[in-house]
Amino acid sequence: MVQHLRVTYNDIHNLIRQRTPEIARAFNPDLLIAIGGGGFFPARVMRTFLREETSKKTLQIQAIGLSLYEPVDGASEEQIGLEVVRTQWLGDETRKGLVGKRNLIVDEVDDTRKTIHYAVSELWKDVDRELLNHPEGERAALRAATKFGVFVVHNKKKTKLAEIDASTPYFSGADIDDLWLDYPWEATDIEAHDELAAADKASA
Amino acid sequence: MVQHLRVTYNDIHNLIRQRTPEIARAFNPDLLIAIGGGGFFPARVMRTFLREETSKKTLQIQAIGLSLYEPVDGASEEQIGLEVVRTQWLGDETRKGLVGKRNLIVDEVDDTRKTIHYAVSELWKDVDRELLNHPEGERAALRAATKFGVFVVHNKKKTKLAEIDASTPYFSGADIDDLWLDYPWEATDIEAHDELAAADKASA
Repeated sequence: MVQHLRVTYNDIHNLIRQRTPEIARAFNPDLLIAIGGGGFFPARVMRTFLREETSKKTLQIQAIGLSLYEPVDGASEEQIGLEVVRTQWLGDETRKGLVGKRNLIVDEVDDTRKTIHYAVSELWKDVDRELLNHPEGERAALRAATKFGVFVVHNKKKTKLAEIDASTPYFSGADIDDLWLDYPWEATDIEAHDELAAADKASA
Repeated sequence: MVQHLRVTYNDIHNLIRQRTPEIARAFNPDLLIAIGGGGFFPARVMRTFLREETSKKTLQIQAIGLSLYEPVDGASEEQIGLEVVRTQWLGDETRKGLVGKRNLIVDEVDDTRKTIHYAVSELWKDVDRELLNHPEGERAALRAATKFGVFVVHNKKKTKLAEIDASTPYFSGADIDDLWLDYPWEATDIEAHDELAAADKASA
């Protein structure tokens, strides 16, 4: 039987509250990049807590749209969940804004790590293309000043199908077993969802 | 004294639950366009309820970033709140995807209507530019088939500084007085926020 982990909005809000001071100290992001749709809510909440922790004005949130290949006519079983599809990407202005910045990629869950891996490697490609518009002598320093970090609300402790470079700071709100996560924004009856989440906590 | 209206995550979730069946019947969106940061969470929740109401697969959410001009050095008092600034916009592929579709713009609050007005009019400009890539004889029909609608969680009943065309379907989760809205994603102490929201409801 698949075990479910039900999380409430406040659970997620508080995971982000607890983790953000360390992220502010260790990574100090200049820009948040939300992976839609799951990263939208966490990124918006994190912006609130980053504002408390740093002297920066309100951080910008940029959105990218990624989804793992979903079943469509003609797709083989093997393709499902293997290919990351872009549904939205950064515009030219934003790509310029990555160079020399500390960019934190935000998503709700790290399951197989394929989506996170795709985001990090494609964003580096954007940086490398953008560096060609800078004088050759400045490129190495600008690249060294450019950082990507990752924050996910939940990281599943399981064999990952992709890895991200060890030089990429990685933060999670919680490391959990390989459970089926029930997020509140997917609940059609939020009161029932919250009651089940409370019962889970009471019996834990 | 400014009156505050404190809303919880579940309040917003349920406003969207209540309103979505009518939106599905009356507008039946093909695409959601979230205005970031405030529209991110409502759009993600609405996608869940639209999936219940329609035969469509998971709707795509595209994000645009807009903010009203914020105080910076050299800005006059008069400029503040008057100018809408783009921080992210749709890419080429998405702009193509607006034509002939029913596109629902989602934000958390309609205060002066300047942001909503900007979004609707700029998205129409994108459509008109994109129509030039279609044969001239097809343009009028494609334009007629293209619709924009608007959903905001809260609409403030006040004098608006901009209007949207009456042909643009407009939906709100709730029409409220001109209060200071305290959204949960801005709360640093979510339990205290929820208690104050509950006290407001008990005394209402």
